[in-house]
Amino acid sequence: MTTTNIDKTVARAADGLIDVPRGLAGVAVTQTEIGDVRGAEGFYHYRQYDATKLARLRSLEDVWLLLLDGALPDAARAGAFASEIEPLRQFPASMRPVLDAVAASTTDTTDALSVLRTTLSAAGTTLGLAPLWDGDETSRRADVLAVAAIVPTLLAAVYRLRRGDEPIAPRTDLGHTANYLWMLRGEVPSEADVTALQLYLVTTVDHGFNASTFTARVVASTGADAAACSVAGIGALSGPLHGGAPSRALDMLDEIGSPDRAEPWIRAKLEGGERIMGFGHAIYRGPDPRSVLLRETVRELATTASSEGAALVELATAVEDTTLALLAELRPNKSMGTNVEFYAGVLMHLVGVPHSLFSATFGVARSIGWSAHVLEQTRDRKIVRPSARYVGPAPSGDVPV
Amino acid sequence: MTTTNIDKTVARAADGLIDVPRGLAGVAVTQTEIGDVRGAEGFYHYRQYDATKLARLRSLEDVWLLLLDGALPDAARAGAFASEIEPLRQFPASMRPVLDAVAASTTDTTDALSVLRTTLSAAGTTLGLAPLWDGDETSRRADVLAVAAIVPTLLAAVYRLRRGDEPIAPRTDLGHTANYLWMLRGEVPSEADVTALQLYLVTTVDHGFNASTFTARVVASTGADAAACSVAGIGALSGPLHGGAPSRALDMLDEIGSPDRAEPWIRAKLEGGERIMGFGHAIYRGPDPRSVLLRETVRELATTASSEGAALVELATAVEDTTLALLAELRPNKSMGTNVEFYAGVLMHLVGVPHSLFSATFGVARSIGWSAHVLEQTRDRKIVRPSARYVGPAPSGDVPV
Repeated sequence: MTTTNIDKTVARAADGLIDVPRGLAGVAVTQTEIGDVRGAEGFYHYRQYDATKLARLRSLEDVWLLLLDGALPDAARAGAFASEIEPLRQFPASMRPVLDAVAASTTDTTDALSVLRTTLSAAGTTLGLAPLWDGDETSRRADVLAVAAIVPTLLAAVYRLRRGDEPIAPRTDLGHTANYLWMLRGEVPSEADVTALQLYLVTTVDHGFNASTFTARVVASTGADAAACSVAGIGALSGPLHGGAPSRALDMLDEIGSPDRAEPWIRAKLEGGERIMGFGHAIYRGPDPRSVLLRETVRELATTASSEGAALVELATAVEDTTLALLAELRPNKSMGTNVEFYAGVLMHLVGVPHSLFSATFGVARSIGWSAHVLEQTRDRKIVRPSARYVGPAPSGDVPV
Repeated sequence: MTTTNIDKTVARAADGLIDVPRGLAGVAVTQTEIGDVRGAEGFYHYRQYDATKLARLRSLEDVWLLLLDGALPDAARAGAFASEIEPLRQFPASMRPVLDAVAASTTDTTDALSVLRTTLSAAGTTLGLAPLWDGDETSRRADVLAVAAIVPTLLAAVYRLRRGDEPIAPRTDLGHTANYLWMLRGEVPSEADVTALQLYLVTTVDHGFNASTFTARVVASTGADAAACSVAGIGALSGPLHGGAPSRALDMLDEIGSPDRAEPWIRAKLEGGERIMGFGHAIYRGPDPRSVLLRETVRELATTASSEGAALVELATAVEDTTLALLAELRPNKSMGTNVEFYAGVLMHLVGVPHSLFSATFGVARSIGWSAHVLEQTRDRKIVRPSARYVGPAPSGDVPV
C-alpha cells in the first residue's frame, strides 16, 4: 500500500481538502487486484486475463472463482465450487410468504430491479447474514457467495409467481447460467442458448469502478452484511445513467422495424440532435470490446434461430452499420462506437430471457462481480468517508426563533 | 462550479490517475450547501446554522425544511409543510401483506435496519417511484419526502406486527417525532419525551459526508429512484464501522451496573487495551458537540424520570466522568471525548424507544438528511464513477483452456 506516501504528496487546498474532478472521474479511490478497464487501449481484464477472451473460453463459474481467488480453477477445484454454490441457489422455505407478497404487490410496469432490491434484502435477513466484520475471511466469503448465488432464483421466482405459476427449484445437474433459464421456463435450455447467455454474463460480470460496484464497496467498507452491499449496488444499477438498460436498444429496433427503414429513421434522430440507444461509452473511445463480442455471438445464434430471431439479428447489424456510417457523416468529430447495451437485448431475447428481466439479468452478472469486490474491500479495514466542499452561507450561531 | 479548474490543477500520476488518501479521507467529492462539520473547531452546521443550537430551538420539521430548501420556515410555511408530509406517513394498504410476511420472517436477533432496508425498498416499489431523473425538481422533491416520511411508520408497523399487535395509523394532530412514539406505543407521548427525542433526531439528522450519506448520493448520481438511494444508505448505516449503534454504550452501562463499579471496570478494560463504547470520533478532537447536548438533555429528562431512569442517568454521567479521567491518566497522548453514541441509547431508553430500534431510530433521523442530499445530488447530472489502481499481475490475452 502506497497510501502513506499519497497522503504526503497529494495536492491540498488551503483548508486541507483535496479537490478532485466531478464524479470522481479518474480518481483512484483504492487499489484492486480484481481487474481494470483500459479504455484507450480498447480492452478490459479480469485479474490478469483479457475479459472477452475469458468469455469465449471459460465458464461463468470459472470466471467467478478467478475474480474471487485470483486463479482459474482446474477440474477438481471447479467441481468443488459447483458443489459449494449449488445449495446456495435454493431460497429458504421461510422466504416464500415474502416472495408471494412482493409478487402480489407488483404491477406490469414494476421494474424488476426494484423487486430484486426488496427480495435480495429479505433474503439477507432470512439467511441471518451478520455484519461482514463480525466474521472472518471464510464466513465473509460464504456470505458474498450466498448473496450472489441466490439472485437468479429470486428473479425467476417472482417472475413466475406474478404470472400465477409456481417457482421452479434449481437443478443440481445444471450450472448457474442454465439454472437461470431453467428456473424461468421450466425447460432445460439448449446448449446454444446457455453458451450465448453465459458469454453475455461473463462479459458483463465486472467493468472497473462503475457506480454500482463502487456503491457496493462503500457499503462493504462500513462492515455491513453482504446483502446490504449488493442491495445498494442493485439500487445504483437501476439508475438510468448507469447504462444497464439493454431493453432500450431492443425497443429502438422494434420501432425501426426493418433494415430498409434504418437509414431515414436514424438520420432523422441524429439531425434532431437525439441520442441513438446503444451507442457511445464514457470509457472506450473506439469500439466497446463487449459489443464486438456480442455482435459475433448473436450472429452465431442467428444461424440456428427462428426466422423471427434471424430477422432481428439482421435488423440489428444493419442498424449498427447504418448508425456508425451516419455518425461518421453527421458527427465526424465524435468517435462513438456501439456499446454493450446494443446487442445485449438482442441476445437475451434470442435465448428467451423475458424483456422485463433484461436489466435484472445484467444484475445477475454484476452480483457475481460484487461478490469479489465486497470481499476485497473488507480486507481493507477502513471506512470510506469523504468530505465535501461547503459552498453555502457562512455558518453562525444565531438561530432565529 | 470550479470543477473545470480543478481538473487542470489536480495532481495526476503518470498513468493519468489521481491518487488520494485511503477511504477518501479529506477528499472533497463534491460541493454542498447542506452543511459541514468543523471538527477542529468543535462544531457542525446545517446550512448556515449551528446544528446543536437548531436542536435546542427548532422542530424537526423546521430543520427538515431548512436542509431541503435552505431557509427556516415561518409559521405559514411550517403549516404547509406539515400538511405536505402528513399523508406521506401512511403506508399504502397494498403494502400490508409485505409487512406481515417480513414481520413473520424475522427472529429476535434480526437487525431492525435490515428489516427497514427490505420494507423501505418495498415501499418504493408500492409507491411506484420512478427514477429521479425521469421527473423534474417538483416530482423529485415529492419522492425524497415520501421515502423519508414513511420510515418511522414502517419501523413501528413491523415492530408491532412481530409482537402480534396491529399497526397503529399516524395521527394528523401529531408531528413527526410524536407520531413515531405514538405508532410504536399507541399512547400520545408526553411533551418531555417528544422534546428530548426530537432533540436527538435533529442532532443526528446530518453530519457531513459520512459513509451512508455518501452512499445515498452515489446512488442518486445514477438517477435511480429515491427509495434506491435511501435503501443503500440504510445498508451503509448498518455497518459496525459506521458508528450508528447507540445500544452498544447502553449495553456497557448495563454491564457496569452501578457508579461505584465504573472505575475498576473501565480501568480493567483500558489496561487490557480494549475500546470503551461511546468514546472517540474520527472527526472531533475535543468533545463531540452532540454528546455535550445529549448529556444536558438526559440530565433534564432525569428530573422527571422514574427512579430507574434517574439512576441510569446518574450511572451514565458517572461512567462518562470516570472514563474521561482514566483516559487522561492511561492514554494521555490521545484526545478522546465522548461521542454521540454514548448518551443516545440512554435518551432513547428514557423516552421509551425499544432497544431493538435504537440504530433504526438513528436511521429515522438520517433519512431526513438524505432527502436533502439526494435532492441536491440530482441537480448535478454527473454519475459518480471513480477509478481504482490495478495492482495485480499484468494483463495478457493468453487464457488457459
